[in-house]
Amino acid sequence: MNAEIIVIGDELLIGQVADTNSGMIARYLNSIGISILRTTAIHDDAQQIKLALAESFSRVSLVLMTGGLGPTKDDITKTTLCDFFHTRLVKSAEVERHVRSLYRNRPDVLNRLTETQWLVPEASTVLENRVGSAPLMMFESNNHTLFSMPGVPYEAQIAMEEQILPILKKRLQHEAIIHETMVLYGIPESSLAILIEDWEAALPPHLHLAYLPKDRMIRLRLTGHGNSDTLLKEMQQQIDRLRPLIKPYLIAEEDKPIEVLVGERLKAHKQTVSSAESCTGGRIAALLNKQPGSSTFYMGSVVAYDNSIKQNVLGVRGDTLSSVGAVSEETVSQMAQGVRHLMQTDYAVATSGIAGPGGGTADKPVGTVWIAVAAHEHTLTRCFHFMGDRERITRQAAVAALILLLKEML
Amino acid sequence: MNAEIIVIGDELLIGQVADTNSGMIARYLNSIGISILRTTAIHDDAQQIKLALAESFSRVSLVLMTGGLGPTKDDITKTTLCDFFHTRLVKSAEVERHVRSLYRNRPDVLNRLTETQWLVPEASTVLENRVGSAPLMMFESNNHTLFSMPGVPYEAQIAMEEQILPILKKRLQHEAIIHETMVLYGIPESSLAILIEDWEAALPPHLHLAYLPKDRMIRLRLTGHGNSDTLLKEMQQQIDRLRPLIKPYLIAEEDKPIEVLVGERLKAHKQTVSSAESCTGGRIAALLNKQPGSSTFYMGSVVAYDNSIKQNVLGVRGDTLSSVGAVSEETVSQMAQGVRHLMQTDYAVATSGIAGPGGGTADKPVGTVWIAVAAHEHTLTRCFHFMGDRERITRQAAVAALILLLKEML
Repeated sequence: MNAEIIVIGDELLIGQVADTNSGMIARYLNSIGISILRTTAIHDDAQQIKLALAESFSRVSLVLMTGGLGPTKDDITKTTLCDFFHTRLVKSAEVERHVRSLYRNRPDVLNRLTETQWLVPEASTVLENRVGSAPLMMFESNNHTLFSMPGVPYEAQIAMEEQILPILKKRLQHEAIIHETMVLYGIPESSLAILIEDWEAALPPHLHLAYLPKDRMIRLRLTGHGNSDTLLKEMQQQIDRLRPLIKPYLIAEEDKPIEVLVGERLKAHKQTVSSAESCTGGRIAALLNKQPGSSTFYMGSVVAYDNSIKQNVLGVRGDTLSSVGAVSEETVSQMAQGVRHLMQTDYAVATSGIAGPGGGTADKPVGTVWIAVAAHEHTLTRCFHFMGDRERITRQAAVAALILLLKEML
Repeated sequence: MNAEIIVIGDELLIGQVADTNSGMIARYLNSIGISILRTTAIHDDAQQIKLALAESFSRVSLVLMTGGLGPTKDDITKTTLCDFFHTRLVKSAEVERHVRSLYRNRPDVLNRLTETQWLVPEASTVLENRVGSAPLMMFESNNHTLFSMPGVPYEAQIAMEEQILPILKKRLQHEAIIHETMVLYGIPESSLAILIEDWEAALPPHLHLAYLPKDRMIRLRLTGHGNSDTLLKEMQQQIDRLRPLIKPYLIAEEDKPIEVLVGERLKAHKQTVSSAESCTGGRIAALLNKQPGSSTFYMGSVVAYDNSIKQNVLGVRGDTLSSVGAVSEETVSQMAQGVRHLMQTDYAVATSGIAGPGGGTADKPVGTVWIAVAAHEHTLTRCFHFMGDRERITRQAAVAALILLLKEML
C-alpha cells in the first residue's frame, strides 16, 4: 500500500525551518508496511493546498498532512479542508474540554484566539491531540482518507504514535517491508561497490540495495518486500553471504547511531567513559548522554577550549604545549589520560584539532585532528585529515572518536 | 519568479535521512528574488523522476534537483535525465581531469566505478563540482532550465554558491523578496497574536506576517515583495510601529540563533564565558563554540554528569548535594560559580535538571531544570518546567540558559 505526505508551511519553502515530520511519518508507516510514494512541501495557500491534495488523491488513497493548524491568521489548513471536503466548522465540546484542561495552569493562554481551536470541520472525525491545542482530524470520502495533524514536530509525533498508527494498523492486512542495515567504516563507497558487486548482481529483484555515506561511514541498506516470515529468512541468508566480504569494515549490523552502539557496549560491561574535548567542543559529551540512562556509563567531560584549561584542569604539561603545540599526539594523549584520571573512568576519549576556518598552517592544515582513547593500560592515538567546513569537521571528528573507542572496546 | 525543487532518494522517503538540501537551495534562491512554489521528494525510480520533472515544468520554468548521482547502481538520475532530454552519455575529458586531480592522493578511490563519473549527458552543460566527483549539470530545452546536483549536502551547497547562483543572478532582472525577523521570548503565540492584532490587520496585502514558535521562542517574520528600495523603507516603518508593542519580549531584531547573539555581544565587550552542565550535557558548550572565532570569548566547560564530578571538579559542597540534591538552586549556583572560578571567565552558566524519561519525583518532575548565570558580583538563578521528551527538554534548557545569559548582559 502506498501513501503520500503533504507538509504545509511558508517556513519550509523559504528554508527557515527544516521539515523533519515527513521522515518521522514515513518511519511509522514503513513499520506497518505502507510505503511513501511522494512527499510534497507547499505554502500556506488555500489554492496550493487544494491542488496538492487533489493530485495526491489521484495517485494514492491515503494522505497524511502536517501544518497550518495554529491559532494565528497565517494558519489556514482547517478552513481550506472544510472547503475541499464541502463541510463547515462547528464547535466541539470535547476539544473545548481538552484545551481548557491542557491550559488549566496557564490562564494567559486561554484567550479569544485559543477558542478558535475548538471549532472543527463537521464532516471530520476529531482525534485527541494529547499534547497540544490544535485539532487532529481524519477525513474520509470516496475511499480516500486524509489525516491532518499539527506541524509542531513533537505534537505530530505523538499524533502518529498514539492515534493515527493504531487506526491504520487495524485496517491493514499488510505485507511487510523489511530494512536491514549494515554500518561500515574505512572504505570509499565506490571501492565497496566493486568489492561486493558479484553479490549485489545476484540479488533477486524484490531485494533492493542502497549505499548511504555520511561522516565517513557507509550504511548499506538491504530492503525487501514480501511475506514477512520467508522474507526475513531470505534476507538473513543474503547477509550471511555478504558478511565475510565486508568483515574488515563492519562496525555494526543494525541501523543504530554510533553513540548508541558505544553506550550499549559500556552498559553491558558495566564500564564508564569520560571525554576531554578541544575542537569537538562538547559534541562527544552531547552524543554520549543523548540516550536515556546514560548516567550509568557516562561520568562527565572537560571541554578544554583554551590552552590554560588544558593545563590547569586536565594537567597537560606546559612544555608539551610550548614545544609541540595543542594539536599534537602528545597533547591529546595527556588530555585523555588527564580526564580519565580526573573522572576515574575506565575509558576516556580526547580530541584536539583545527576546525577552521582560521588557524590552519602548512604543517597542520584546517581539518587536522588528533584523537586519543585512553584505557587502563595504554593510550591509542590517531591523526585524521577531515574535509569540509567547521561544522562538518567537528561532526566527523566526534564520530571518529566514538568509532575509535568502539574498536578499542571490541 | 517561481522555481521548484525535486529531491531524489529512497532514504528520504523511508525517513532514514532528513532532507536539508531543499531549505538550503530555497535560502539561496530567495536571496536573489526567486520563490519556491513547491518541493517534491521522490524515490530513485526512473518513472517517478520523469513524472515529477514533467509536472514541475508544467508549473514553472526553473527546476533544481538533488540526488541520485553517485557511482553505485542505485543512482540512476543521470541516465534518466538523458532519457528525459533525449540525449546520451559521452566522456568528458574535463570532468576526468578534475576527478583524477581530486583523488590524486587517494588512488584507492580511482577505480572502475569512479570512471563512470566522467560520463555526462551530451546535451547538458557540465559545471565544476569542486569538492566531489559527481557531475553538476545544467539542461536547457524549450525555455525550461534544470540544474541537477549531488545529494551530499556539502557538495550541493558548494554547487549552489559557486556555480548555480552566479548563473541565475546574471539572467535575472529581479524584484526583491525581503524577510525581516523579530525574535521574542516569554509570551505564548496566541497572546502575541492578540497583542499585535490591530497592527497586523492594518498591514498592506504585499506584506505577510508569520509566527514561528520553537523552543519557547517565537520568531515573527514579516515578508515583503516589491521594489527593493521602497519596500525596505516601508517594512522598516511597519516595524517601527510594531516595536513598542512587543518590547518586553523582544530578544533580537534579526534572524540569528541565540548562540550567535550571545557570541557577538561577548566579542564586542571583550568578555569571556564558560559553562558547567549537568542535564544539558555539553549542548551549551557545543552551541557556544559552533561559531568561527569562538576561542576569543569561550574558554571551556565542565560537563558534570555524575555528582562526584560536581563535587571534585566544580567544588559543589557535599552537604548541599546531600541536603537539597543536585537539582536545586544551591547546587546550580555553586556549579556556575565553581566553573567561573576554575576557568577565570567573566560569565558562567550552569544547568541541573531532570531530562527524563526516568528520575522524576512528585517534587521535581521530569522537565524541572535549574539554571544559573554567574557574573562578577552576583549569581542569577531560575527554575523552569519544560515539556517534552529528553531531547526536547535538554534543547529547551540550553536555549533558556543562553537567553538568561543574554538578558544578564543587556
